[in-house]
Amino acid sequence: MFHEGLLVVISGPSGTGKGTVLGLLRQSTPNIVFSVSATTRAPREGEIDGINYFFKTVDEFKAMIEADEMVEWVNYCNNYYGTPKKFVDECKQQGNNVLLEVEVEGALNIKRKYPDSVLIFIVPPSFEELRRRITGRGTENPEVISQRLEQAKVELKFIDRYDYVVVNNTLKQAVEDINSILKAEKLKTSRNSRIIEHLDFKDA
Amino acid sequence: MFHEGLLVVISGPSGTGKGTVLGLLRQSTPNIVFSVSATTRAPREGEIDGINYFFKTVDEFKAMIEADEMVEWVNYCNNYYGTPKKFVDECKQQGNNVLLEVEVEGALNIKRKYPDSVLIFIVPPSFEELRRRITGRGTENPEVISQRLEQAKVELKFIDRYDYVVVNNTLKQAVEDINSILKAEKLKTSRNSRIIEHLDFKDA
Repeated sequence: MFHEGLLVVISGPSGTGKGTVLGLLRQSTPNIVFSVSATTRAPREGEIDGINYFFKTVDEFKAMIEADEMVEWVNYCNNYYGTPKKFVDECKQQGNNVLLEVEVEGALNIKRKYPDSVLIFIVPPSFEELRRRITGRGTENPEVISQRLEQAKVELKFIDRYDYVVVNNTLKQAVEDINSILKAEKLKTSRNSRIIEHLDFKDA
Repeated sequence: MFHEGLLVVISGPSGTGKGTVLGLLRQSTPNIVFSVSATTRAPREGEIDGINYFFKTVDEFKAMIEADEMVEWVNYCNNYYGTPKKFVDECKQQGNNVLLEVEVEGALNIKRKYPDSVLIFIVPPSFEELRRRITGRGTENPEVISQRLEQAKVELKFIDRYDYVVVNNTLKQAVEDINSILKAEKLKTSRNSRIIEHLDFKDA
């Protein structure tokens, strides 16, 4: 009935298990494409242009910003990173849902520019569980752990600007929740003007 | 995570197969309760108070309207019919999704009064299919058939006031679509202030 894909933006504090959820989603759900970012940083060993990133010169990247060809972009550690509009639009037109994993600020910028984008916030079941997950990695010193927990608190202040909240309690449930959101969003009357027009029985 | 049930309003033209969809939904989905209407008409053979209807005198019914105890009501063929608020609220508080099958006018009245209600419009796959389904019943004369098709056209003009549109192409798909809508609605941040508060880490 409805053929254009959705622009889906996923955020969530570090340690929530977002990466694992999105990995399973990618494997188990058809018509999902993960956005490929453009960047000015040099390719690392094994990275392929158009797969891992679209590699750009600084001039090329700035020209894309000027021409409003970026869905969102940031400058991080002297390198530009951004989401090329062309890639997103082409995927959507092919009927694929395009998933972007971005920070809160980027997500809210996208929502302003694309009000019909779908913002999903993934949260841990509790603060204690988040602490366990971050500590459990065993790779971070106490200061870094404390910084991440503070960062999580800041990010969570913006959760009511998101459309949906998914609790990553069990991986399976979280993936099912996201799938239900994608299906329901496609059934919104606001996304189905074509079918409604068709059913208006104008020529009946 | 979220325990209160939803108020779900279903409409759709006669001949869409709404009844069959809702019947299968009732069998296959937990935590769904169908609203029981109040009426001033006399009970028919076998009808049980509180199961088929809440049977009321005209005075009782009018008093309920006065006291704002009806979600919506109509007077049809000199009998009152309405949805008692108390029944709906109790079901929701028990965590059940309450389903109401009402006409377009009633549905829009409910949405005004309960902005967080979920309005779903069920449509046939095409006008031709609707005609086939209505004609196929074999019980209606050409005039009645033509009236129903005209009525369908009128109702469809209001579809964009609904939140979702479900095409009853196959019964199974239609029921799955409604289930996805119910799941996604429960994941909306606007319905999850409690979990968000909990995650605000105030006491962390």
